[in-house]
This record gives sequence, structure tokens and C-alpha cells, in this order.
Amino acid sequence: MKIRVGFGFDVHQLRDNHPFVLGGLTLPHTKGAFGHSDADVLLHVICDALLGAANLRDIGFQFPDTDSALKGVDSKLLLKKTIELVSEKGYSVSNIDCTICLQKPKVNPFIPEMKAIIAGILETDIDAISIKATTTEELGYVGREEGVSAYCVCLISG
Amino acid sequence: MKIRVGFGFDVHQLRDNHPFVLGGLTLPHTKGAFGHSDADVLLHVICDALLGAANLRDIGFQFPDTDSALKGVDSKLLLKKTIELVSEKGYSVSNIDCTICLQKPKVNPFIPEMKAIIAGILETDIDAISIKATTTEELGYVGREEGVSAYCVCLISG
Amino acid sequence: MKIRVGFGFDVHQLRDNHPFVLGGLTLPHTKGAFGHSDADVLLHVICDALLGAANLRDIGFQFPDTDSALKGVDSKLLLKKTIELVSEKGYSVSNIDCTICLQKPKVNPFIPEMKAIIAGILETDIDAISIKATTTEELGYVGREEGVSAYCVCLISG
Repeated sequence: MKIRVGFGFDVHQLRDNHPFVLGGLTLPHTKGAFGHSDADVLLHVICDALLGAANLRDIGFQFPDTDSALKGVDSKLLLKKTIELVSEKGYSVSNIDCTICLQKPKVNPFIPEMKAIIAGILETDIDAISIKATTTEELGYVGREEGVSAYCVCLISG
Repeated sequence: MKIRVGFGFDVHQLRDNHPFVLGGLTLPHTKGAFGHSDADVLLHVICDALLGAANLRDIGFQFPDTDSALKGVDSKLLLKKTIELVSEKGYSVSNIDCTICLQKPKVNPFIPEMKAIIAGILETDIDAISIKATTTEELGYVGREEGVSAYCVCLISG
Repeated sequence: MKIRVGFGFDVHQLRDNHPFVLGGLTLPHTKGAFGHSDADVLLHVICDALLGAANLRDIGFQFPDTDSALKGVDSKLLLKKTIELVSEKGYSVSNIDCTICLQKPKVNPFIPEMKAIIAGILETDIDAISIKATTTEELGYVGREEGVSAYCVCLISG
């Protein structure tokens, strides 16, 4: 069995009066993440970590933001297509660990539901999906509430 | 045997004439990291990486900054409690690799002692604990000496 | 067999009318990365991830920027020396996953050539080397085109 590691990092701008899609949920907040798709930074970093681990380029390569068919697309579909690509190459997910960097709102109450959504799409045990959250202590663009970023590491095996 | 990967990222503000606790040591410097606990960003990212790998939520969930009993707490105690939680779930540490992002002071001279402290708390071989350091070339909040950040990746097995 | 994980993060300033060396290539652009060596942030994070995984300190420790012999050095030589150190400790590369954070220019067209260069230096299969790229959506020093950063995770075994 071969084990491989992957890593994802992504950023989206936060804009006033915009829907805030994160981890497959729409969070109640005065600002939301902006992008070509639904701007779900958490699902995007999971896609990137899985694609990187399997050496299948990245989310911008597989799902280009110049593709008008992907405008406003539900990122759950991108994650579903990603896991299909990874599976076709012969790998399955061992575990995933994500970190959301966001000043406001607190996302901890939403994490169990996000984990269930992601485990469902990836068809893994829920114990394989970890999501953590941190602020950046009011520093930088995350601290100024201008953006939201996220990290993901994963192990895949095959 | 099951192998899992974890990742931690954290930030603390630097303030003038504040103690600078990092890696279990107090560094001689004109500024120090500020937070609810002793603000030891290195020990915090190790906690978060281990908790993430074992899927035990995150440091903010396990040790909330709304808990007045944790005000000013020595982060070595948080790391000790973290490894107990990870052990109870049946995992042990394979290796840890940390990166400190700090413009000043140079931390390289302190790294061997930090590694010994962390290996002691985790009860691992010192070769399992790596600590690296980098500046951000005077860019961003780290570069402007407004903050210190750190990353950690880990493998655990069980 | 022992498996270990490593992580690298690095930043370089971008300056006008400076050569932009990235992934062993010189990119056509109006700005370039500035540093003591050739400032190849991608090769530097691979060095740091490999050194961290093998617990051999970091790139600043192994190749100090106070060493005048390393002024302007080709980072491909640093990566070659790094893999020699890692091999001497008994480890070989399982896989590497990199992420370049850069607002402009688009680096996707250069990635296949960068992967071939890196696989050649590390003497690994090209499928072991993944390189991804992202912008930071015009946020922060990367978004303002003041800098370029990169991340790398790796697995080594021995």
C-alpha cells in the first residue's frame, strides 16, 4: 500500500450582504465569501489537498474560473468530482484535517454538520474528517474581516 | 496500524514590554506574544495538529478562552492534556514538524532546548520533534513585528 | 519502515525589474523574487519540508544567508545538498505536494517543467512531485504583488 500526503490553502474575499457558504452550509452573517463558484473556501482546500496528494494538478486546473458553466456552482459538486478523480487513480481517503481562519462569526457550532456533509460526499467514516477553526487575533486580512482562508492536509492510500 | 496526519496554524499579537513565551521558554526580547493563556504559539499549533490528527476538535474547543481558570495558563499544561486525550483515543506521535514565522528575534539558538521540552511533555524521542524558523522578509503582520505565527504538521499512529 | 511528514513555508519580496526564479525556471515577468540566494521560494519550501521531515533543522541553518559563498546561489544546488543530507540519514522521498501563492503571472503553464526539474534533482518518479498554484484574491502582500509565498508538505520513509 502506498500512502501520500496532500495540502491545500485558499483565500476568498468577504463582502457585505453576500451569502456565506462554508463547509456546504450557508452561515448566518452580515458578510459572505465572494468568488466565481459559491466561494466555499473549506470545500476548495479539501479539493486541493486531495488533488495534490494524488498528483492531479489543482482546483483551478480541474475546474477553471474561466468556465462559465461553473459560475456560482455548488462546491459540493466540485468535491464530488474531485473524489471521483482520486478514486479513478486508485486512492482512497485515510484522513483529512482542516483549519478555517476567520475572525467572525464563530464557526464551532457548525462544525459537526459540516463534517457530516463532507464525510457524505467523500463516502468516508465521519471520524476521518476533522475541521478546526481559529481567528488571526485581528491581524491581517482575516483579522480585518476582509477575507476568510483555510488550510487542509490529507492522507490518501492506494 | 492506522496512520493519520494533522495540521495546526495559529497567530498571536506581539506587544511591547510583554513576556515572550515560545516553545516553553521565555525569550529575551522587547516584545512578547499576547493572549488569554501564556500565548505560546508554538505549543498551541502542536496541540491543534495533534487534536486535528486524532479528530478531537481544536484547542479553542478543548481549552476555551472563556474559561477563567485558563487565564495566563502555562501552555505546557495544555500540551500535556492534549497528548493525554490523543493517547486515550489509542494514538501515539510518530513525528512533528513545526515552523515558526517571526521577524525578530532569531530563535535558532533556542530550538534545541525547545525540542527537549516538547519531547519531554510528549514522552517521545527528541528525533521525533522538528522545529524550523523563518521570517516573512518584512512582509505582512509578521514582517512588521505586529505578530508571530506558527505551523505544525504531525503524523500519529495507532 | 518509518514514515515521517514534513512542512515548509517561505516568503520572498517581489521587486520591479528583477529576475523571477521559481521552480528552477526564470519566469517572464516585470517583477521578480528578491533574496540572498536566487530567491526560488518553491525550491526553498521543498528543502525546508524535507529537512523538517528528517529532523535536520531548516534551510537557514543548513545554508545561512550570512554565508557569502551562497550569495546568488542557484537553489537547485541547495535542493541537491538537501536530498543528500536526507538520504544520508536513511530516508527517501515518498511524495511532495507544493502550493505557490502568487497574484501574477499565472504559473500553471510552467508547472510540468518545474515538476520535471525537481523530480530530476530528487531522483524520484515525476508522479511523486505535485505543484499547485493559487492567488490570494488580491488580499495581503501576495494579493498586492509585494511578495510570493509557497507551502510544501512531504512524506519520507526509511
